[in-house]
Amino acid sequence: MPQYKAPIRDMQFLLHEVFNVEGHYQALRGNDEVNRELIDAIIEEGARFSENELAPLCRSGDEEGCHFENGVVTTPKGFKEAYKKYVENGWGAMTAHREQGGQGLPASMGTVVSEMNGTANWSWAMYPGLSHGAIRTIEAHGTPEQKELFLTKLISGEWTGTMCLTEPHCGTDLGILRTKAEPNADGSYNITGTKIFISAGDHDMADNIVHIVLARLPDAPKGTKGISLFIVPKNHVNADGSIGDRNGVVCGSIEHKMGIKASATCVLNFEGARGFLIGPPNRGLNCMFTFMNTARVGTAVQGIAAAELSFQGALTYAKDRLAMRSLSGPKFPEKEADPIIVHPDVRRMLLTQKAFAEGGRALIYFLAQQIDLVEEGADETSRQAADDLMAFLTPIAKAFCTETGLESANHGVQVYGGHGFIREWGMEQIVRDTRIATLYEGTTGVQAIDLLGRKVMLTQGRLLKNFSKIVHKFCVENEADAALKEFIEPLAAMNKEWGDTTTQVGMRAVANQEEVGGAAVDYLMYSGYITLAYFWALQAKVAQQKLAEGSTEIGFYTAKVQTARFYFQRLLPRTRSHLAALQSGVANLLDMDVDNFAF
Amino acid sequence: MPQYKAPIRDMQFLLHEVFNVEGHYQALRGNDEVNRELIDAIIEEGARFSENELAPLCRSGDEEGCHFENGVVTTPKGFKEAYKKYVENGWGAMTAHREQGGQGLPASMGTVVSEMNGTANWSWAMYPGLSHGAIRTIEAHGTPEQKELFLTKLISGEWTGTMCLTEPHCGTDLGILRTKAEPNADGSYNITGTKIFISAGDHDMADNIVHIVLARLPDAPKGTKGISLFIVPKNHVNADGSIGDRNGVVCGSIEHKMGIKASATCVLNFEGARGFLIGPPNRGLNCMFTFMNTARVGTAVQGIAAAELSFQGALTYAKDRLAMRSLSGPKFPEKEADPIIVHPDVRRMLLTQKAFAEGGRALIYFLAQQIDLVEEGADETSRQAADDLMAFLTPIAKAFCTETGLESANHGVQVYGGHGFIREWGMEQIVRDTRIATLYEGTTGVQAIDLLGRKVMLTQGRLLKNFSKIVHKFCVENEADAALKEFIEPLAAMNKEWGDTTTQVGMRAVANQEEVGGAAVDYLMYSGYITLAYFWALQAKVAQQKLAEGSTEIGFYTAKVQTARFYFQRLLPRTRSHLAALQSGVANLLDMDVDNFAF
Repeated sequence: MPQYKAPIRDMQFLLHEVFNVEGHYQALRGNDEVNRELIDAIIEEGARFSENELAPLCRSGDEEGCHFENGVVTTPKGFKEAYKKYVENGWGAMTAHREQGGQGLPASMGTVVSEMNGTANWSWAMYPGLSHGAIRTIEAHGTPEQKELFLTKLISGEWTGTMCLTEPHCGTDLGILRTKAEPNADGSYNITGTKIFISAGDHDMADNIVHIVLARLPDAPKGTKGISLFIVPKNHVNADGSIGDRNGVVCGSIEHKMGIKASATCVLNFEGARGFLIGPPNRGLNCMFTFMNTARVGTAVQGIAAAELSFQGALTYAKDRLAMRSLSGPKFPEKEADPIIVHPDVRRMLLTQKAFAEGGRALIYFLAQQIDLVEEGADETSRQAADDLMAFLTPIAKAFCTETGLESANHGVQVYGGHGFIREWGMEQIVRDTRIATLYEGTTGVQAIDLLGRKVMLTQGRLLKNFSKIVHKFCVENEADAALKEFIEPLAAMNKEWGDTTTQVGMRAVANQEEVGGAAVDYLMYSGYITLAYFWALQAKVAQQKLAEGSTEIGFYTAKVQTARFYFQRLLPRTRSHLAALQSGVANLLDMDVDNFAF
Repeated sequence: MPQYKAPIRDMQFLLHEVFNVEGHYQALRGNDEVNRELIDAIIEEGARFSENELAPLCRSGDEEGCHFENGVVTTPKGFKEAYKKYVENGWGAMTAHREQGGQGLPASMGTVVSEMNGTANWSWAMYPGLSHGAIRTIEAHGTPEQKELFLTKLISGEWTGTMCLTEPHCGTDLGILRTKAEPNADGSYNITGTKIFISAGDHDMADNIVHIVLARLPDAPKGTKGISLFIVPKNHVNADGSIGDRNGVVCGSIEHKMGIKASATCVLNFEGARGFLIGPPNRGLNCMFTFMNTARVGTAVQGIAAAELSFQGALTYAKDRLAMRSLSGPKFPEKEADPIIVHPDVRRMLLTQKAFAEGGRALIYFLAQQIDLVEEGADETSRQAADDLMAFLTPIAKAFCTETGLESANHGVQVYGGHGFIREWGMEQIVRDTRIATLYEGTTGVQAIDLLGRKVMLTQGRLLKNFSKIVHKFCVENEADAALKEFIEPLAAMNKEWGDTTTQVGMRAVANQEEVGGAAVDYLMYSGYITLAYFWALQAKVAQQKLAEGSTEIGFYTAKVQTARFYFQRLLPRTRSHLAALQSGVANLLDMDVDNFAF
């Protein structure tokens, strides 16, 4: 496994120099004490914990996997101990509300820390990651009693949480889920049904697990409008908060997966388990949607984690491995051959990884600020503006960052040649681990329909305009800057084309709804490349500025500009293929008779 | 694992209707008895063997993997028995020379059978696959005694073979290999060195293994011009052909890999092992190059195998799995939801797999015919023309088919949603197994340099012109056909652009050699999409013809035309991105200082 080293300089560049995070935090409600010193201390501590405690368990966790015996799940060696330290250091409580013992730091600090944890060891990071969903759900929809009973220990990390949505016959299509909730006389419910793909559904890291379960009440309407949310603890919780007997929820098995093998993916059988309604009846999906954006940004992080880690591994190898000579003559004649980083194609792969890691990081940090603003913006206008940006950019970030993360991980293997295929080096594990990222939390296809159908079409393009206005403003502000011309000109052109393309697709969709599905994924990827072009132009601008101001960090800032240039010249043109494909119309997809696909 | 079903109808369409293989065979030297009945019988028997004997061992072979204990490699359960049947049925001897007991069938029949074997179970197919390399080497360069002693049993399949090239410090760069060969008084050599990544390097399927080893003689010049080839048997062979003591070649370990886990990848330690020079001294690489094209086409097959198998699996699931409703209203209102094949994006993925599988198969079958012609063409002109086509198209086929095979395998996982990540379904195994295909037998980057540097630049574009003339002739012949206009027009335009682009790249390379490396992979992929466009137009033409003639197989031929249309409208536009990237020049790759890649 490549030894993970948190890219602190890049993180600080984005947080402080590009996004002025200190000013951003101080404008939030109740966060005026979060200053640069605190931010940097958290990053440094988070880096240390990730590099020293989590990274060393990444390969061993993959080799060992989780164990399942007699209904009990055991995590790989060292996982439990690392989690104990995580809890002791207060990481889990960092961004939770102060009322239940949280530290009340802005959500975006959590994103930064979870990026480091997850890049060091994604499987491990799944366990605390899932707790966050449960915490946010109870924070928003729980009664004071539920908060008292469940939230405090979730926040402290003594207990962990899960989100139980998927069933064997349905994942994307939650409208057809079957788990049922029958009311008891005491106000509780008996939950019965089978849930699958439950991450952290059972394990040995905490004393109790709080499941948030989607189920149907007896009189519930069919479809998505008849789903309610329930809190179902693994072990009963007594009124004084102590743990009682086992509840009727049993882990039936764990999945054998391609990757993230150290993350327990459980089949959970609810056999009349005692649960508690949370939020209004039949409004469970709405309650969940509140946090869907946050969860999806959390998954987008997996994409940049894969790009970053595979970049680090490939870069080390490319500097070290000797093979062939540079086409323009030996660069290291004293060596048996040149290190492969002299070869342009190896650099093409490295720069692709770097461009996706750093560009995606910029997009995600920007989105994380929007999460802060949605939750703690100073006024309704800023909260609403942030919510609109989130709504539009989240499906792009989730799908685009995970797709390009997978591509980057594959480049990492490719740079190693045949050695990339050997488990020992750890590069292939990154591909396997990150392969799930384009699937869970809504596949790329689901994100694409969400973007084009719900976010763009249903708002008549309003949400797109919100973002493209920001891009437009940036272009106008910088159009006179000769040093930025190579970025601003194409960005402005693409931004305009984006709007035109959207209008065209919209017109087609009016005539035939299916056109949305036919264009969606290419439209999303097209939008993703343009979005990242903005974030690369933004970084280039800041870097140029620093260089003009006479910064001594010439190497760092020059590399930023060069990576932006690489992005604009080598990756942004991919919009051409996606544009042609999405403009080709849906007929070439729908014309074939189902029976004629194969003979 | 998807249950593999050999796509016999498609294979026959290509062999008989597109490529007139019967006529082709009868024009070869000594193959006038190969007729359609024989060809079809071989395909049907090959399909039966692959589906019934090999496919059932694919998942179990992956789960079990190979075992290594006390220097001995054991293959997974059933592998040995399947190999025994393969030998008994005479499959191994099918395309070998008659002099040593082969059946003397054309090489391209071997490609067709190996495609079926390999799609059913690539790991298993590696064992007999490696023998072919050894057989061809000894057939071409062995002395009569070497043929008598080693070739007969390799052909019968009693023994298997390997190719020992790679060493720990070198794979691509064989010029720096270190294994040494010291002459003995009796004319044999003592071979000493370590070889890695030796597929089928040790196993329990045959009584002996014949290693073909690259090594240096004591007085050998440095670099690639000082490498010789040696035959080194695992067990000594007595003069009467019986097996003697163990030779000094020991399996040190087997690799733990991402995929093809049932294929033993060995570290072989040659400890003064007795070997025999084959071919002239210091000309080993030249002797190997004779078969490099064949081996690379064999690896290209892995790409279409992955595309075909993942397509079959995804198609079954897409018809079966219910989720959501079609955007234009329920298609199966009686069901809980629509099968996901109603969704355009699922079809986009399926059609991409289908287009790469069937388009790549056409390219590979065409190339396999060129192999026949190189070996057994009726006259020198046809042999040379075929050799030129091979030289140009082989790197394209190897890299393009394996890259698109990997993409297709990933689509297969994606169609399954979260279930694609679960080992049980077998879809993720296809991704893991085929991941090696872009790495071994020369990475995509190596193929790209071979194409643009050696095949295109060094011949001043002559080899490209050979092929683009064929495309041009096809376009001219069919330009009046209104039904083909949608294919011929873009194909003709792309074919012209291909030449222009090549000229441009050539001019840049004159000024700066590095431009070749900067453009190579994008140039290869660009060329691949145009090449496949030709093979899709060709298939569309034949299908249109059959429909016009009133064939009753309307569904099959209509699907061919529709898949061609999908290819032209949705995949061929990817040339736009590759073109822009390759035209952007090498500066955006080389400008960054090595020390500035990361901070």
